[in-house]
Amino acid sequence: MEKIEDKNQQQEEEQVVNPWEVSAKEGGKIDYDKLIDKFGCQRLDQSFVDRVQRLTSRPPHVFLRRGVFFAHRDFNDILDAYERGEKFYLYTGRGPSSEALHLGHLIPFMFTKYLQDAFKVPLVIQLTDDEKCMWKNLSVEESQRLARENAKDIIACGFDISKTFIFSDFDYVGGAFYKNMVKVAKCVTYNKVVGIFGFTGEDHIGKVSFPPVQAVPSFPSSFPHLFSGKDNLRCLIPCAIDQDPYFRMTRDVAPRIGYHKPALIESLFFPALQGETGKMSASDPNSAIYVTDSAKDIKLKVNKHAFTGGQESIEKHRQYGANLEVDIPIKYLNFFLEDDAELEHIKKEYGAGRMLTGEVKKRLTEVLTELVERHRRARAAVTDVMVDAFMAVRPLPNMFD
Amino acid sequence: MEKIEDKNQQQEEEQVVNPWEVSAKEGGKIDYDKLIDKFGCQRLDQSFVDRVQRLTSRPPHVFLRRGVFFAHRDFNDILDAYERGEKFYLYTGRGPSSEALHLGHLIPFMFTKYLQDAFKVPLVIQLTDDEKCMWKNLSVEESQRLARENAKDIIACGFDISKTFIFSDFDYVGGAFYKNMVKVAKCVTYNKVVGIFGFTGEDHIGKVSFPPVQAVPSFPSSFPHLFSGKDNLRCLIPCAIDQDPYFRMTRDVAPRIGYHKPALIESLFFPALQGETGKMSASDPNSAIYVTDSAKDIKLKVNKHAFTGGQESIEKHRQYGANLEVDIPIKYLNFFLEDDAELEHIKKEYGAGRMLTGEVKKRLTEVLTELVERHRRARAAVTDVMVDAFMAVRPLPNMFD
Repeated sequence: MEKIEDKNQQQEEEQVVNPWEVSAKEGGKIDYDKLIDKFGCQRLDQSFVDRVQRLTSRPPHVFLRRGVFFAHRDFNDILDAYERGEKFYLYTGRGPSSEALHLGHLIPFMFTKYLQDAFKVPLVIQLTDDEKCMWKNLSVEESQRLARENAKDIIACGFDISKTFIFSDFDYVGGAFYKNMVKVAKCVTYNKVVGIFGFTGEDHIGKVSFPPVQAVPSFPSSFPHLFSGKDNLRCLIPCAIDQDPYFRMTRDVAPRIGYHKPALIESLFFPALQGETGKMSASDPNSAIYVTDSAKDIKLKVNKHAFTGGQESIEKHRQYGANLEVDIPIKYLNFFLEDDAELEHIKKEYGAGRMLTGEVKKRLTEVLTELVERHRRARAAVTDVMVDAFMAVRPLPNMFD
Repeated sequence: MEKIEDKNQQQEEEQVVNPWEVSAKEGGKIDYDKLIDKFGCQRLDQSFVDRVQRLTSRPPHVFLRRGVFFAHRDFNDILDAYERGEKFYLYTGRGPSSEALHLGHLIPFMFTKYLQDAFKVPLVIQLTDDEKCMWKNLSVEESQRLARENAKDIIACGFDISKTFIFSDFDYVGGAFYKNMVKVAKCVTYNKVVGIFGFTGEDHIGKVSFPPVQAVPSFPSSFPHLFSGKDNLRCLIPCAIDQDPYFRMTRDVAPRIGYHKPALIESLFFPALQGETGKMSASDPNSAIYVTDSAKDIKLKVNKHAFTGGQESIEKHRQYGANLEVDIPIKYLNFFLEDDAELEHIKKEYGAGRMLTGEVKKRLTEVLTELVERHRRARAAVTDVMVDAFMAVRPLPNMFD
């Protein structure tokens, strides 16, 4: 009995963050400081924000200056190299498990788009349709269909086609990419992946085989049509921090097979409407705002489901003000309301009780509706021909211009 | 202590046969009946030999009529289908771990060449350079070089280029082939591959990932340029019985992903010169006759290293005769001396002590020298252009003619 209690206690105390599960300890929220310690990455402090601003001669993205991207690995090496006049390339991706993306899914792409524009560098985007086929038990065909649908949402984020290669694993695995997969797999024991990813003996071997697939886009030689003769090109990976385990493994292997370790810049999770205990979930439609939601949907979801820090009566609210620490509308505005002055004003007034929850929710609804409408218009303009063009295996002769 | 003794005793008693190790129990030889029981395959009896002769209207290959290919799985289904007028395709392969092949390596190819000619069917030959890169710790480049060198030896066996596609995994994995790998991997747990192949936690994940690579050439959809629209085409795999574990796994998975189970026809191991306790080893040059050995090498190896059942003195030999059961020259002649009458004569005379070991060795040297010389001449005529032609990803419009 004692042993079982110990185990339950430990489970309650521990947050779980891996590529398939993000959950805070009971009733709490994700402790990002602990995560940084546990994963062994670095905090991205203000000096980085200032340096990026100086190097790119443009204002840092709101996600950078407000700490949405809050952790990194060797981002300083990327900036050092860039300052010496060396270029790098960006690598990000998505597991296409659902037709409609939610706002949390857009965050790495919005940020990657900024990085591409600011640093003027090429970008590879991996759609892990093989992963979703294996983890979600989708058919090959359905995984590929979702990959193409998701590609349209990604393209709608505004990537530069002359600098961007999007690929699906089912289409692209082979050749130099497969050779690198084998090189990586040779360097990682089964015990090691169990330690990193928590696989069990009853998991199928597709799961055990997958980590090298997500690892090798970190190596320029996986893309001979893009980076032939550029084996020393550095790679920077913007992603949510739950993907860190893949790249810890990749960074461990890289020098043993003659490549640079990829650098990482990692984001917080975008919280669920119901509160910040994890990231948004595609399986609970009321936990998230989708890019397919109508203005009416958004209004309803924000009004009905957003967890707030407002007080239970107007009188108490006027007296004590809102608890901004737990307030989801404030957190969402922190991601998407670009005007720093307006955000500060709202936080001050709402925190002091002079602004009511309904007013904040109304402003959030406007901001999200505008964002979603803008995305929808952009996505509607993405044709199948454009998807084919982004996904064509081709050289990108102007990718460093 | 008792437990340890038990384990030692068990190890002594058990023969080990898997794709990477073949060893009889201490001092004994491989017990093929036990192997058939353990693996769950069927013995290939005389009725099959007769049936093949009748269906193909040609004498059965010496390897068939002398029981070198001695076991099968569902070979009857292949013959039933063939009798109904349905075609099938052949799949065999090689792990290119060494530059020079020995005679044991040639056996499946010699037999497959006979099957291709007799049944007039297409053939795919897999060179698992990825496997050897992972198991033997060769570089990608060296594995690929060995694959091409081995392809020359394989082509020298006389395959029909209009019916034969040779591929290396490093070149060919991708597309439909990769999709089938993922489908297979989804159906096999880690515990399952541990049970089949004996992997441990300290083995690298490349090993765990490999079985689907060897599985999927069993499915026609892995070769869209050959078998598009022929998903129901049956597959027959001629191989040595140590490869059975791969195809037990494949057969288990096949119906779950909508394919026929591949049929198998499986051979004995070709014994080492030193005696029949295992198969020839590429790592001990004196255990095997290589296709690169000179007539002088062959004579020396046969005379010096071949284990015989002759008696220790001529007097005793004349009196007791040779023990044919353990005699390697007789075993080798059983594989390669095609004249049944001459073989019977030698066995009778040698067994009765009227023929001496030296005489049998001399005849074996002649037979092997002729075989090796013929192979060497054929291989010398194989150009790089021919290798490219056999390995070109192409349709084979006349493959069923």
